[in-house]
Amino acid sequence: MPTGEKLEVVEKVVENPDSISIKHTIDTNVELDTHVISPLKYFEARSRFNDESDRHTTVLLILNQQINILPDLFAKLWNNATLKVCADGGLNRLRDYDSTSSAYIPDYVVGDLDSAKKENIEHYQSLGTKKILQSSQYYTDFMKALSLINTFFNFPDIISDINHLDTVDALEKLEEERSAESGTKVKALKIVVLGGVGGRFDQTMATINQIWNLSSRRPHLQFVILNPEHTEIIVLLKPGFNFVAYPRFTPQEETEVFGIITEKSRPGLRNVGVLPILSDAVITTYGLKWDVENWRTGLTTKMSSSNLQVGKEGFIIWTNKHLFVDFEL
Amino acid sequence: MPTGEKLEVVEKVVENPDSISIKHTIDTNVELDTHVISPLKYFEARSRFNDESDRHTTVLLILNQQINILPDLFAKLWNNATLKVCADGGLNRLRDYDSTSSAYIPDYVVGDLDSAKKENIEHYQSLGTKKILQSSQYYTDFMKALSLINTFFNFPDIISDINHLDTVDALEKLEEERSAESGTKVKALKIVVLGGVGGRFDQTMATINQIWNLSSRRPHLQFVILNPEHTEIIVLLKPGFNFVAYPRFTPQEETEVFGIITEKSRPGLRNVGVLPILSDAVITTYGLKWDVENWRTGLTTKMSSSNLQVGKEGFIIWTNKHLFVDFEL
Repeated sequence: MPTGEKLEVVEKVVENPDSISIKHTIDTNVELDTHVISPLKYFEARSRFNDESDRHTTVLLILNQQINILPDLFAKLWNNATLKVCADGGLNRLRDYDSTSSAYIPDYVVGDLDSAKKENIEHYQSLGTKKILQSSQYYTDFMKALSLINTFFNFPDIISDINHLDTVDALEKLEEERSAESGTKVKALKIVVLGGVGGRFDQTMATINQIWNLSSRRPHLQFVILNPEHTEIIVLLKPGFNFVAYPRFTPQEETEVFGIITEKSRPGLRNVGVLPILSDAVITTYGLKWDVENWRTGLTTKMSSSNLQVGKEGFIIWTNKHLFVDFEL
Repeated sequence: MPTGEKLEVVEKVVENPDSISIKHTIDTNVELDTHVISPLKYFEARSRFNDESDRHTTVLLILNQQINILPDLFAKLWNNATLKVCADGGLNRLRDYDSTSSAYIPDYVVGDLDSAKKENIEHYQSLGTKKILQSSQYYTDFMKALSLINTFFNFPDIISDINHLDTVDALEKLEEERSAESGTKVKALKIVVLGGVGGRFDQTMATINQIWNLSSRRPHLQFVILNPEHTEIIVLLKPGFNFVAYPRFTPQEETEVFGIITEKSRPGLRNVGVLPILSDAVITTYGLKWDVENWRTGLTTKMSSSNLQVGKEGFIIWTNKHLFVDFEL
């Protein structure tokens, strides 16, 4: 009995030289529906922001984890965000990081406020920070901060009532209802989350879980997680082509862009990890030291970690499922 | 048309007081096939080791990540292991941690040795450490270390040839073949892995991936991962009842057991996270602040992170699937 023809998909791994151009792939494969991730815009000097509207919807959210990144990098991160929010104990971490100058005054501190020290709350309140108490134990401080941020930009008519919405998570509920009603009419927000990854393991995985849940429920929120202890960025990739537009610079170019040399960039290549932790996936990559094609990957099978960026223009990951990618700054 | 009766499994969450006994659950539910995890035995003073044979098969494996744990705790960890192995750059971390005393001399340094500094290799070689070069790029230093460890205990007849097996991962292949042949007759080994979690995110997930793969392929290897930066333990739980036998102590009892007060134990309760990252699972817990019953959990749905241990005797997790748990020391 003849069997039907079976379409064989062949997995491939190619080892590339330390520097290649992926311009051809960008030109031929990267279409309008490609997801372009431009991490630089959060760290560049203000004058280099390509699209001014981006800055107006960029938020810095500081979670409760030690901040250990280069001061120049932190300054650019801060200056590139319109709104700065500390989730509860994140306020202590900001004060510890900036203990002498008080150069960084967040717009809000939000959460059940069992972690933020009273003296720090008073210090920042005296400098203009608004305190938003959200005392429910059924949402995390991270979720509460996100409700505040989304309300601030998308439902400013209820933000003035925010202090009446403090005890029963009325804000979270109201904001969810409003979000559901307004559908796609809401503004897309870019949220740089400082912390939540790199500390205790359950907190790291809880961050991944929450980023996934928030991204699914509110697709207008785009997250960039910055590990405050090892200076890497983690983003959620969507099915399809994802182009991480992060060129490799000469030291001189890098100084022009960042104003500084980043910690890990020279000498050596940037580490990249492709992390299929939400589900198994099939991926094809362009611009990595070990590029793969039609490669089945999963947390219980095989993964591409400690890979390196060799693409001059950045790197591209095509995937059939959502997955996370991390890369060093 | 009548439909068949549907068996409804009801999820429950119970908030417990800060101290409860789970003795009744241990006595009634914890049968012979329960998996008992006794983290204390790796940290106790030697005299308190319950089962002398445990020590003879306990290994400390140091990976390439900064060591930042209490000296007294490290000393006990070291003294409770028969064999001490550094995977490549782990040797540098050990030297950095113990730069003045040279009290800790590992038995082996293994890997492609592109990270371990020449001066550190020479330093430890002069004190008796054996250097095992395994230069293949197709296995990680972690995998190579595991092959060495398994060979050391289970196939001592080939360990003397180890320096002839250095360039083509002959050791890894031979050890795998031998393991497959000998089946279940091999010795169970307890491997405390210091590092691999808590640093760069792709390295953390790669550790999880490798622990899973190694545990599946070689079930006689049992792993305990110690996060060297935040003093937490991570273990893989099997389907069924898992009893983490980690009593809550008074400060005096704790001093008797550890010789010291651990960092996170007093005041406050130990953090616990139940992490269904390999697949979704259904769990029931006993001895946590927020105990759950028939609770569906998954990385893309809901997870129990930042939970607390309130069980005096430890805590129990029943699960229908493999999952990871982390808890603070």
